[in-house]
Amino acid sequence: MSATRYTLYSYFRSSASYRVRIALQYKGLAYDYAPVHLLADGGQQYAADYRAVNPMSELPSLVVRDAAGGAVTLAQSVAILEYLEETCPEPPLLPRDALGRARVRQLVEVVNSSIQPIQNLKVLKKLGDDFALDRAGQVAWGRYWVERGFGGLEGLLARVAGEHACGDAVTLADVVLVPQVYNARRFGMDLASFPTISRVAAAAEALPAFRAAHPDAQPDAPAEG
Amino acid sequence: MSATRYTLYSYFRSSASYRVRIALQYKGLAYDYAPVHLLADGGQQYAADYRAVNPMSELPSLVVRDAAGGAVTLAQSVAILEYLEETCPEPPLLPRDALGRARVRQLVEVVNSSIQPIQNLKVLKKLGDDFALDRAGQVAWGRYWVERGFGGLEGLLARVAGEHACGDAVTLADVVLVPQVYNARRFGMDLASFPTISRVAAAAEALPAFRAAHPDAQPDAPAEG
Repeated sequence: MSATRYTLYSYFRSSASYRVRIALQYKGLAYDYAPVHLLADGGQQYAADYRAVNPMSELPSLVVRDAAGGAVTLAQSVAILEYLEETCPEPPLLPRDALGRARVRQLVEVVNSSIQPIQNLKVLKKLGDDFALDRAGQVAWGRYWVERGFGGLEGLLARVAGEHACGDAVTLADVVLVPQVYNARRFGMDLASFPTISRVAAAAEALPAFRAAHPDAQPDAPAEG
Repeated sequence: MSATRYTLYSYFRSSASYRVRIALQYKGLAYDYAPVHLLADGGQQYAADYRAVNPMSELPSLVVRDAAGGAVTLAQSVAILEYLEETCPEPPLLPRDALGRARVRQLVEVVNSSIQPIQNLKVLKKLGDDFALDRAGQVAWGRYWVERGFGGLEGLLARVAGEHACGDAVTLADVVLVPQVYNARRFGMDLASFPTISRVAAAAEALPAFRAAHPDAQPDAPAEG
């Protein structure tokens, strides 16, 4: 349809990368996959070539090349999701009305700013360094914040969920929720206490775009997931 | 201009509340101020009456009442900022073009998801509880994440800053940067290593809307700042 080309810098397990993969897949946008291993070589995100792409040394980054050969690099998953929604509005991932959009973004931000940042890899590593926290302690820290956040999120979803997280259509709320649920399972969490989260995550995970974006389906996933 | 009425649940020092105060002031929107003290009474955000407003027990929340008496409650500062921008677009806090908007949102998210959540009050408190971290240790933790984030942000700003954080107009990037700089000062950080951050923060802080939104100017600020 368009001559725009996308390159996604991603790590298969990075939940923020996973969000952008879902949106690209959902909108039917083909992209080249540039793996950046967050653990190998002391963290490939700190290498000079990736710092030139993203001075924050974080994933994901999306390079957008137009037909004339111009290229821009965008970082921060939520900024990328909003950009894709504005430039490739179909199929939509935000409602048309301002209030509906605010409700979706509120759910997005619960995950994006109140849960994910406190349990991500660089925080767990810092806790290990500063407090000699072992892997079990790191997992307990991560679970604490996900359980706390999911408690509030469950209450918010009870007001707005339909077939999906916010009403009956897939939205950015599902796009960020599914990767957080993936992290929750990695922390060994029992999701039975969060019936709405479990239900809407399962509904979204069954969709082709979400399946294609799953960590285990990525080129940099190990042969044994 | 409109019969819409706003009530902001806020704490004077909450940097996420501070963001929304700036946007309301910048757009000339009058609002009622509902203080929620994050430390008094074990944290008023955990009281049943505030949990009914916001199940996440976080600040800010914005209640929007229309002329017909309908009311909606929105939480999460970035979702609120986007809602205000969509419903009260003048004066704008986002550029018109998708790429410009993405650049602003990228800067917003560096603060919103990569810095602020890891250094906020509930994380510092949890570190105190789990690792007997004293106040000096908590400040050192906060400084570490702000300094690390500002290092990357300085590199991003060098590409896009003009008179303000993203070009010559005030944008949401300034709206979230100024409260983070306020936090940095509270952590005793020397901002001399971040000349672009310092320069654009000073330019924004001098504007009337930013001054009116400053923590020391709020009704719940103690008489001696």
